[in-house]
Amino acid sequence: MSLTPNYKPAEQAPAPLLDNLGVDWVVHYEFEDLDTSKAIDEFESLLHDLHEANLETQVRHGHGASLLVFIRVPRAHLGNLVHQSRIKDWLYGIIHELPAGDEGTIADAETPAEALRSVYHAVTWKKSLGGAHITPKHGKWKNIGSAFPLHDQAANAELLRKWSRTVLLTAEDLDSIRALFGEKVAFYFAFIQSYSSFLVFPAGWGAVSWWYWGSYSIPFALGNCLWAIVFVEYWKIRETDLALRWQVNGVGVLKVTRSKYVWEKEIRDPNTGELVQYFSPYRQFLRQLLLVPFASVASLALGGLIVVTFALEVFISEVYTGSLKGYLEFLPTVIFSLCLPSISGLLTRIATRLTKYENYRTQDQYDIAQTTKQFVMHFITAFLPTVLTAFVYVPFGAKLIPLLSPAALRGDSADLKHTIHIDPERLKQEVIYLSLTGQVLDFGQEIVLPYVKRIVLQKWREYREQHSTVHHKRDVSQATNQVLFDDPNESAFLTRVRNEAEAEEYNVHEDTLEMCVQFGYLTLFGASWPLVALGFLVNNWLELRGDFFKLSLECQRPPPIRSDSIGPSLQGLEVLSWLGALSTAAIVYLYRDGMVEIRVSSLLLTLLLAEWAYLAMRFAVSTGLRKILDSTLQREAAKRYAMRKGYLEAASSEGSPRGKLRVRFRDRVSVYTSATDPPSPQAEEMLHEAPLDSERRFWSGTSVLEDGVRIIRALGKTSQKAEKEL
Amino acid sequence: MSLTPNYKPAEQAPAPLLDNLGVDWVVHYEFEDLDTSKAIDEFESLLHDLHEANLETQVRHGHGASLLVFIRVPRAHLGNLVHQSRIKDWLYGIIHELPAGDEGTIADAETPAEALRSVYHAVTWKKSLGGAHITPKHGKWKNIGSAFPLHDQAANAELLRKWSRTVLLTAEDLDSIRALFGEKVAFYFAFIQSYSSFLVFPAGWGAVSWWYWGSYSIPFALGNCLWAIVFVEYWKIRETDLALRWQVNGVGVLKVTRSKYVWEKEIRDPNTGELVQYFSPYRQFLRQLLLVPFASVASLALGGLIVVTFALEVFISEVYTGSLKGYLEFLPTVIFSLCLPSISGLLTRIATRLTKYENYRTQDQYDIAQTTKQFVMHFITAFLPTVLTAFVYVPFGAKLIPLLSPAALRGDSADLKHTIHIDPERLKQEVIYLSLTGQVLDFGQEIVLPYVKRIVLQKWREYREQHSTVHHKRDVSQATNQVLFDDPNESAFLTRVRNEAEAEEYNVHEDTLEMCVQFGYLTLFGASWPLVALGFLVNNWLELRGDFFKLSLECQRPPPIRSDSIGPSLQGLEVLSWLGALSTAAIVYLYRDGMVEIRVSSLLLTLLLAEWAYLAMRFAVSTGLRKILDSTLQREAAKRYAMRKGYLEAASSEGSPRGKLRVRFRDRVSVYTSATDPPSPQAEEMLHEAPLDSERRFWSGTSVLEDGVRIIRALGKTSQKAEKEL
Repeated sequence: MSLTPNYKPAEQAPAPLLDNLGVDWVVHYEFEDLDTSKAIDEFESLLHDLHEANLETQVRHGHGASLLVFIRVPRAHLGNLVHQSRIKDWLYGIIHELPAGDEGTIADAETPAEALRSVYHAVTWKKSLGGAHITPKHGKWKNIGSAFPLHDQAANAELLRKWSRTVLLTAEDLDSIRALFGEKVAFYFAFIQSYSSFLVFPAGWGAVSWWYWGSYSIPFALGNCLWAIVFVEYWKIRETDLALRWQVNGVGVLKVTRSKYVWEKEIRDPNTGELVQYFSPYRQFLRQLLLVPFASVASLALGGLIVVTFALEVFISEVYTGSLKGYLEFLPTVIFSLCLPSISGLLTRIATRLTKYENYRTQDQYDIAQTTKQFVMHFITAFLPTVLTAFVYVPFGAKLIPLLSPAALRGDSADLKHTIHIDPERLKQEVIYLSLTGQVLDFGQEIVLPYVKRIVLQKWREYREQHSTVHHKRDVSQATNQVLFDDPNESAFLTRVRNEAEAEEYNVHEDTLEMCVQFGYLTLFGASWPLVALGFLVNNWLELRGDFFKLSLECQRPPPIRSDSIGPSLQGLEVLSWLGALSTAAIVYLYRDGMVEIRVSSLLLTLLLAEWAYLAMRFAVSTGLRKILDSTLQREAAKRYAMRKGYLEAASSEGSPRGKLRVRFRDRVSVYTSATDPPSPQAEEMLHEAPLDSERRFWSGTSVLEDGVRIIRALGKTSQKAEKEL
Repeated sequence: MSLTPNYKPAEQAPAPLLDNLGVDWVVHYEFEDLDTSKAIDEFESLLHDLHEANLETQVRHGHGASLLVFIRVPRAHLGNLVHQSRIKDWLYGIIHELPAGDEGTIADAETPAEALRSVYHAVTWKKSLGGAHITPKHGKWKNIGSAFPLHDQAANAELLRKWSRTVLLTAEDLDSIRALFGEKVAFYFAFIQSYSSFLVFPAGWGAVSWWYWGSYSIPFALGNCLWAIVFVEYWKIRETDLALRWQVNGVGVLKVTRSKYVWEKEIRDPNTGELVQYFSPYRQFLRQLLLVPFASVASLALGGLIVVTFALEVFISEVYTGSLKGYLEFLPTVIFSLCLPSISGLLTRIATRLTKYENYRTQDQYDIAQTTKQFVMHFITAFLPTVLTAFVYVPFGAKLIPLLSPAALRGDSADLKHTIHIDPERLKQEVIYLSLTGQVLDFGQEIVLPYVKRIVLQKWREYREQHSTVHHKRDVSQATNQVLFDDPNESAFLTRVRNEAEAEEYNVHEDTLEMCVQFGYLTLFGASWPLVALGFLVNNWLELRGDFFKLSLECQRPPPIRSDSIGPSLQGLEVLSWLGALSTAAIVYLYRDGMVEIRVSSLLLTLLLAEWAYLAMRFAVSTGLRKILDSTLQREAAKRYAMRKGYLEAASSEGSPRGKLRVRFRDRVSVYTSATDPPSPQAEEMLHEAPLDSERRFWSGTSVLEDGVRIIRALGKTSQKAEKEL
């Protein structure tokens, strides 16, 4: 059973469809709303900037009134960029071996991602750093819709096919993702893989507990909390381990300054002699403290809304006895669901303004701050309803609901008090619904729906284009006609590029957040239905492949950004494992004996003891794990030692160490050292093969500027004409 | 007012007393209980081993039946050892600049401590590592009482004199301690300095609170807890900062294997090609788990004893009305104090056996494990009595004490119940007594008492030696006579060395522990008497100087061991700041309103809220501090960057980087770069001056072996004779 039936045709198609024709990067320039002359000016300026940065260009028309500017970095220039980037890594202490060579050295990239990262820098960095400073949707380039690298279809298909037949991803699979998409994406897949493997324990233990003791059992609660602690502590070590393996440890320091960063002054660093932009950390910290009122207001707003919805729902279902009860019961939830997007949209806008105000120097820090805020909001919407059910509605509902009754509102309280019976099963039902149905719906919304939308849009566009081409065919000159119609050899390739240009950007934080929420459900409410982990385990098998499907076929290929962690999610996981211990203790205490008797002092004592047990266990687990698992870190240290020793020997035996060092980075195998399989296809460097015929032909057109201008004139006119016709 | 009147004479004495005559290390060989022939064999073997390790020797007699073997490392050999040590640092990634030079390079030590560390390695390391493998009190060398370097009296006096006139230690003072005694000792002084400076806040705030609100005030409680969190988080950053400044970050990895380490197998590391001793970390972790039953038993034993003592004391003072009450009241405490040493001795012996069984590879790890156990025991004896007073005796005493009364023991409980009144002031009194009187007594016990003991012992020995020399003067040959009587030029020097040979070893962990206990008092019970911090502040001014006095005049100079932290005390501090938040909350809740009404559920709620507030504050403080204080770490990173950049430029402009790199470690000023004063005397390298006349004379004696044998014969006989005479 292959998961990717839609992929087959691409593979059976002729080779050019799979090949990227040597294109390194694509800029999607849209001029729908622009004057033709303005558009031509901007296009000329774009080409000028790109050529100035030593980049080769080619142009074709895109969907609608848009241009696709293809960028290729000359091989020698690219090799030098890779070398310069490594020198920078060495200077900032990310790697410890000085890459051999001088200013003009041309290095081979170890992975496609490394090469693409240099291309990304060449396209986006400031001119003073040697880039073309193309910033999509910002400032001078606000008409550039996107700038992205092209997918390596063969490699993607190979990986997806391999995974559809296996249960677990291997270390080599993760290395392959890293080689294709960079470390930031690879860290997410490493996380979901580790997490899913760990899920086997609560799934099995949950099944056993459920069979023997049912819900709310102490053995499962203990096992589950301990498991959560072990997993979080394990992941911390694993993350460091991967960061060392992928040589990205501490990579945050060499990220470039965001173009929107505001600084107070520029200081020349007395040690390095570099100009450093300075913004007082005190001021930044003070600004960050605004997070406290924001989080409070957001929590109150969301929480209040949830409480009101909940109260209304309870009121209607338990107290209201009028007509249309069956429909009215769902009304509050429906209204809430309808309001939620606009409220969280508003909160997100405030959060974004706050993050901008906090003024982070690098895009990385900015992303982390923004994601943290989104996490907080997301956690509230995800968990608060269930928390209310578990700790307010079920235990205290019998006392609270009569207060909502018409009798109580009128003032006579003797009424109705004994007619209310709260079903303690409600928590379990809610957990089952949210964890299982919710996961399936999410999957559909996240992967199936966009896929269907994309197919429909494509069909519609094809239909529309067939009609509109008939119209403008006669209006334009012969030369323009040539650039408006695709060369049959390129047409499949161009269709693919046009689709990729319109595809979504991949947001790795969202996928990570989704896994964190799942982890949260398990630790917070797992005790109420031990089978929940089993459901998650099955879901995650699909989720992992679905996410890769989405990444490789429904989204643009992300720029291969480096990162040494899954970011703020790690803190989220820690907080959840702590809240989980408290919540599990409270749930077991409250629900175990069917709510017979609740004493506040015993509940508080349970919470206090659970918290101390949590702190003690976390300390023991983190100490123990670090002791047992440090072999990987030790191996890393030994490797570093061996490298230094080799360097020392070379230096002392040869006089100049240069000759020997060269060996090191021609050694492309290093990513796959521990692999027993032969290196997978993407290791065969896509960027360094002899240009194919079609590729040579694609890049041979020399009249890029004229071609572009012709397209703008033709399509600008066409769209204006089309508007007139409508 | 000078703190060190006793130091004056040494300074006014002629120069040779201050000078160490080029002696790098002293081995104190004791043969009191040995056959003369056995002693001669061992001595010969000792000299053989030392000469084999390329060390020069000289011999003089010590106090009683003992030999002082003086060791000097030839300057060229020492310089090479220093270079080799730096190469090793570089290989293991402690430093990032490859020291220039080849196998035979002779490097200047940056500090006396660096030179002495190489001497220490030459004397103690295994023969396979190039050392003489002298292991005092262990195995083959169990008759060697100690092996130690000599104090640099001029530098010590200079520092002590400087500090007696200042309030705060500067960064340069810490650098000087590091230069004299190594990083492990310097870390303790850095800690007490940071801690004492931080004490200014609770001292001031405590005085204000005491004036306005008296004891048990909420403002002081909040301020005190927050202060504790800020201090611990600050110290963590400060520690890393210092470790980077002193280039010892991660130095634990290159410590050598303990001679008592037992390994399962030796593996040749595939990466480094070195032989690595392997002992399963799983087994070690399992053995470490024995700590849990040990800690439980120790807590129970100590705790039980304290509880019984306490109960007896209460019983006698509150219930007993018989004769001799005034004396009997103190009996339990006296008995407890008498038992305590033997009980904690027993526990320490068990702890030591446990630590040995845990089988650590390096002495560092062993020390840490042993210290951790001692900390636990020490904390129990230090804090449990006050905890009992605060949380059992005062709040519940009125209910519990009647149970101890004779009436209750007989069975009729109606009696006595209303005659008991517990004074809530008792907690305050106990805290005042323990924190103030206790500190003064400790100081006396730790510094004054040993000083007096040493002086008395010295006088007694002088008296006795004057008498005994009269006896054996005639028995020995002329040659022996020569070696038994000191050259007048050397006699002052030899007297000093003999005293140092008999002095205690300095245990830096004990001093650190003492500060932790003080910190614990403040955080746990500070709320009951806010002035306590003021007392501590005054005490610490004296304590710091007293500790340095002890280190430099009453103890042997410790081998300059490296370390990158104050060790397990850091975890102790964290635990204490957490317990402090809980304890402070409980004390304020219980005592604020004079024990009118105690509700268990409110108490538990207070504890839970205090704990959450603690966790939240710790997170906020650690995030904020790391943000604001990372400038020092950034400066470090910038320095590293600058070094790498310089290296890169040198490499690319000159072909071979060697010429330039040499500059770096001739640059002895680097420890004092930020000092505005001229370098203090100890920076003038003691080891590299032209040998003085007296020094040349001291080392000119070539008949080391014969001299030693003569001394053994003479003193061995003498002592046997002396025994016969007695």
